[in-house]
Amino acid sequence: MTSVPSVFNPVRDYYYIAIDWGTSRLKAYLCCVQPNENVTIIDEIQAAGVQKNHKDFASTFRNVTQQWREQNGLLPVFMGGQIGSTIGWKQTPYVACPVAPADIVTGQFEFECEGQIINIIPGVSCQHANGNFDVMRSEEIQVLGWLEASASHRNGTFLICLPGTHTKWILVKDGIIQMFKTAMTGELYDLLTHSSILIQAPSDTFAADAFDLGSKFTLASASGSLIHGLFSVRTKQLFSELSPDEANSYLSGLLIGSDVRAALHAQEWDIKDVDEVIIIGESHISDLFERVIRTQTEFVRCFHGKQATVLGFAAIRQRYLALQSH
Amino acid sequence: MTSVPSVFNPVRDYYYIAIDWGTSRLKAYLCCVQPNENVTIIDEIQAAGVQKNHKDFASTFRNVTQQWREQNGLLPVFMGGQIGSTIGWKQTPYVACPVAPADIVTGQFEFECEGQIINIIPGVSCQHANGNFDVMRSEEIQVLGWLEASASHRNGTFLICLPGTHTKWILVKDGIIQMFKTAMTGELYDLLTHSSILIQAPSDTFAADAFDLGSKFTLASASGSLIHGLFSVRTKQLFSELSPDEANSYLSGLLIGSDVRAALHAQEWDIKDVDEVIIIGESHISDLFERVIRTQTEFVRCFHGKQATVLGFAAIRQRYLALQSH
Repeated sequence: MTSVPSVFNPVRDYYYIAIDWGTSRLKAYLCCVQPNENVTIIDEIQAAGVQKNHKDFASTFRNVTQQWREQNGLLPVFMGGQIGSTIGWKQTPYVACPVAPADIVTGQFEFECEGQIINIIPGVSCQHANGNFDVMRSEEIQVLGWLEASASHRNGTFLICLPGTHTKWILVKDGIIQMFKTAMTGELYDLLTHSSILIQAPSDTFAADAFDLGSKFTLASASGSLIHGLFSVRTKQLFSELSPDEANSYLSGLLIGSDVRAALHAQEWDIKDVDEVIIIGESHISDLFERVIRTQTEFVRCFHGKQATVLGFAAIRQRYLALQSH
Repeated sequence: MTSVPSVFNPVRDYYYIAIDWGTSRLKAYLCCVQPNENVTIIDEIQAAGVQKNHKDFASTFRNVTQQWREQNGLLPVFMGGQIGSTIGWKQTPYVACPVAPADIVTGQFEFECEGQIINIIPGVSCQHANGNFDVMRSEEIQVLGWLEASASHRNGTFLICLPGTHTKWILVKDGIIQMFKTAMTGELYDLLTHSSILIQAPSDTFAADAFDLGSKFTLASASGSLIHGLFSVRTKQLFSELSPDEANSYLSGLLIGSDVRAALHAQEWDIKDVDEVIIIGESHISDLFERVIRTQTEFVRCFHGKQATVLGFAAIRQRYLALQSH
């Protein structure tokens, strides 16, 4: 079935495709926004991310969106994430902080793929107190979505935590991204679980006491606790203080504790100026970060990751249409 | 050729086999000690370590020592390292600190393999200020070898650094091992080089400026610099501050700087009480640690790893013979 072009086509004009195309996963959404209504997810699909794609991005895109295009014809497509990086499809620039997330739309890269107009959103960069640069791609879309969710989010100072393969800690003041930091917490967890001497048999079972033991250790201790503390994952098994099943939770606690401690003591911001810590992500990982952060402050709240992504893309589409109409 | 047993057999009595059988490598030495003379290495051979051995330790042992046994008949064999651990051939206990390294011989495990008497040396354990246990296997043999090398080594307080897959930092006071700590520096370097997003093409070329940049960063910075600093390996490439070739040296500097900082600030000892830092290892890795430690103190010296191992096993054999004769 192919749609017939017309002057006004409600499907074509209110439907669009949003794709968060990251390193490890691609998450595509068929969305609909009617004027003055909230965005609705019509359908969604997941696939492998940039790393496993062997660079054949066009065919991945075709496979993922084929059914939606067959049913609805050509739709506007917005993409964010590593798909715009040096290892992605088309390289988009980084917009430097401080930046209002909606403003990044002006730097997007627009191209055609088999008649389909695709927009890849730029990433965001910043420079730390020590001169190091940092970058992110796709997390700024979630921050934008969270900012859109309530006017109260656009007033005050928030430290936004987005856990994942790489945790991003983003300082947002009155709706403007000021600065951010990246920690390789999730990637380290995967490497140490599957490829190191620490874990003999990976376990997905959550052991709360073991997790808390790990996070308390790195939260409380002085510098270097991570590199000199990791080996305790093995010794606690050798001395029967942890079962092999509990070792994974302890390791997770060690890493998240270290990440949270570093974020709350970062040179790039003063945690005393922060009104609230907001965790944006999927609940299975957000809950772990909340558990640790709550031991340090009561001002912490979770926001659903998918909701943030979809609201963010809706705001990007709206800004894009506004720019087109000028 | 088989040797004919006799009352006095100079080959059988002065020759022995010493095997440092670790996680990643097995290093076997055919050694000779004449009365009142130094130990001589007659021959040496390397093979894969415990992890790659698929538990068939007897056949690995046969293959490695076959020629030596054909030429010299049955010889005493001393082994140390992970071969005595839960993932090794025979599990030997850990002797708790404080301990004089030569005393660990009393806990060795003696068994027969095809007529051959084999002794596996125990490991050493300790408990940190925070209650965590730590363990080592084979490093205590190198410490023993270093102590045997000069009477001056048995007087004073030394912090001994043994870099490797896992760095061991060992506090030795007047010839007694007091305490030690383990850092997973080498294992992290391997995992992050070969399996993470940080390095696209691993490089063995040493880039001094990049290495120093990395070590200065983690040496100088406050807690959490490692987990929040690793991502700079990627961003410095994105912003053309490091070439892909230099990225590996920068990562190495980051990790060794973090390790050294944690060791010099460890709660388990006061670095002001330490007379000298001694690095025992192979020069390609010892040189990197010396380069970093020398930025913090002038009292640092290197000692050759193989020499330490061979002297250590000679002392163990001597103590073993003394115990046998009682």
